[in-house]
Amino acid sequence: MKIVVDAMGGDYAPKNVIAGVVEAIKEFDVQIVLTGVKEQIENELKLYHYPAGRIEIVHTDEVVGMDEPATVTIRKKRNSSISVGLRLLKEQGYDAFISAGNTGAVVAAATFNLGMLPGVSRPAIGLVIPTLKGVAFIIDVGANADPKPEHLCQSGKMSKAYMNAVLGVQNPTVGLVNIGEEEGKGTEFQKESYRLMSESISTFIGNIEPNEIYKGKSDCIICGGFVGNVILKVSEGLMEASSILIKREIKKSPVALLGAFLMKKKLTHIKKLADYSEYGGAPLLGVNGIVMISHGRSSPKAIKNAIRASIREIEHKILDVMAKEVSAS
Amino acid sequence: MKIVVDAMGGDYAPKNVIAGVVEAIKEFDVQIVLTGVKEQIENELKLYHYPAGRIEIVHTDEVVGMDEPATVTIRKKRNSSISVGLRLLKEQGYDAFISAGNTGAVVAAATFNLGMLPGVSRPAIGLVIPTLKGVAFIIDVGANADPKPEHLCQSGKMSKAYMNAVLGVQNPTVGLVNIGEEEGKGTEFQKESYRLMSESISTFIGNIEPNEIYKGKSDCIICGGFVGNVILKVSEGLMEASSILIKREIKKSPVALLGAFLMKKKLTHIKKLADYSEYGGAPLLGVNGIVMISHGRSSPKAIKNAIRASIREIEHKILDVMAKEVSAS
Repeated sequence: MKIVVDAMGGDYAPKNVIAGVVEAIKEFDVQIVLTGVKEQIENELKLYHYPAGRIEIVHTDEVVGMDEPATVTIRKKRNSSISVGLRLLKEQGYDAFISAGNTGAVVAAATFNLGMLPGVSRPAIGLVIPTLKGVAFIIDVGANADPKPEHLCQSGKMSKAYMNAVLGVQNPTVGLVNIGEEEGKGTEFQKESYRLMSESISTFIGNIEPNEIYKGKSDCIICGGFVGNVILKVSEGLMEASSILIKREIKKSPVALLGAFLMKKKLTHIKKLADYSEYGGAPLLGVNGIVMISHGRSSPKAIKNAIRASIREIEHKILDVMAKEVSAS
Repeated sequence: MKIVVDAMGGDYAPKNVIAGVVEAIKEFDVQIVLTGVKEQIENELKLYHYPAGRIEIVHTDEVVGMDEPATVTIRKKRNSSISVGLRLLKEQGYDAFISAGNTGAVVAAATFNLGMLPGVSRPAIGLVIPTLKGVAFIIDVGANADPKPEHLCQSGKMSKAYMNAVLGVQNPTVGLVNIGEEEGKGTEFQKESYRLMSESISTFIGNIEPNEIYKGKSDCIICGGFVGNVILKVSEGLMEASSILIKREIKKSPVALLGAFLMKKKLTHIKKLADYSEYGGAPLLGVNGIVMISHGRSSPKAIKNAIRASIREIEHKILDVMAKEVSAS
């Protein structure tokens, strides 16, 4: 099993990426191929003891910045750590690609270099999120900001396959994010998406309102990339603001300060409700290859967890399973 | 000053509505006109002591259910407590209308009966939300799920006028909800909205990502009704889920339980971050009249606060101020 990791991706690259990779090879039976600037990678690797044969470096001299436009990987920097990494999947048959780099650039390069999975017309980014009942899978959180109803329906099928094959959920339910529960609610886009999904996804449970997401009302949560990205970022911002407010408030009262000290362990646990580093990365679904996008601020632990998640996808032959599910109806 | 209140609106009507109205007339110098089923209203009013001359009842025999389609107030129930209440504004020159009833029905009836404010083409629902810096005004949270860029631009102008006139914020900043900060981010709809707002709103600060909302990055937060509704409901759901999770976790540890007890007062304070009953209602802007929509689950306190907010709008001649702002550019 060979997993390609973009050593240059993320706000703390290559440092955090390399640290996560070294942790991963100690824990999992996997070969890692690092793409990026060889000298920088070697300098980082020197800091660790690890089985040297398990990490390989493929030098690339171009690096994609976090703020560059998505098309840069296709139009200009075709020898970037992202593009080269993805071509290794296509040309060498390597098993998966992970990057904490520029999300738009990874999506564009993956679509261009790997092509689409049969039956799927657009890529979508999924994310495993914690809920009161366990976990749910929300898709799309940002690959396709202006989708058509058939793209949402394809996301529904892919996520159902993913939840079942990779996360072991039997007959995962599929819900469509909408601002009302009844069938006729929302825009024409919503109504048509509803119709397509109800016709072709057996476990479709209808609309789910955004306040039901964290309660775990459905296993798969389907929405367009704009709405999904808003859901994630509002959640992130609200948890951050609450946390700042808690600290600000308890400082005003010695009693509350003591209370907070006693609760500290449990409060940390709560914060995980909007902490996505636990799963390590967001699978990019719809392209013809296993691609995982990690957060730009990924810790070494997040990178290690992204590698673990990719291994699970490889083991469960997620591409075959999804292609079968998409073409089934 | 005469404020019309829909006695039949909300999940706990007329009980909570009447309780809130009675509290309000004791606190504010205002006349209340209640629309609804006279017998039910009188039965509730019997429970209280209040200056009787300050409350008037206008009997209506039709009631709009919370789940009926929005158009019911126009097509069928034209003698509902909502439609009759709004006609009192138009025909008798009363000052404001408040309902905790079916939101869609109130929006449709207000648009039909009051018409639009000069220069505004679609209604939008605003909401005052707490942030780390104080409060912000988010618009639209659900009146217009499928807006055009000019509608967002009009919302920007109205919210700027509202924040300034009613909430006393000098030169309120205006931000556009988007999934990236840079000017060129998002869909064509986003780009065109950005262009219109940057051309005609002097305090426009550009895109704001949803994780910046609760930090108070801008005073006015502009988005379409679908996205705004998602933002509110995700926030509500996340706070609810966190609260359930906190309770679940602390039950597992006596130490944490003691900690929670000591922190209780402060934790309650935090929950207000996503508790909109403080302001009492959401102003429906863009129609040619002062209309406030309260949450279906409004408490008496929320109804009282909605009356207070309406009084402020009347005192500050919000309709004139908004019309002037909209036509200014």
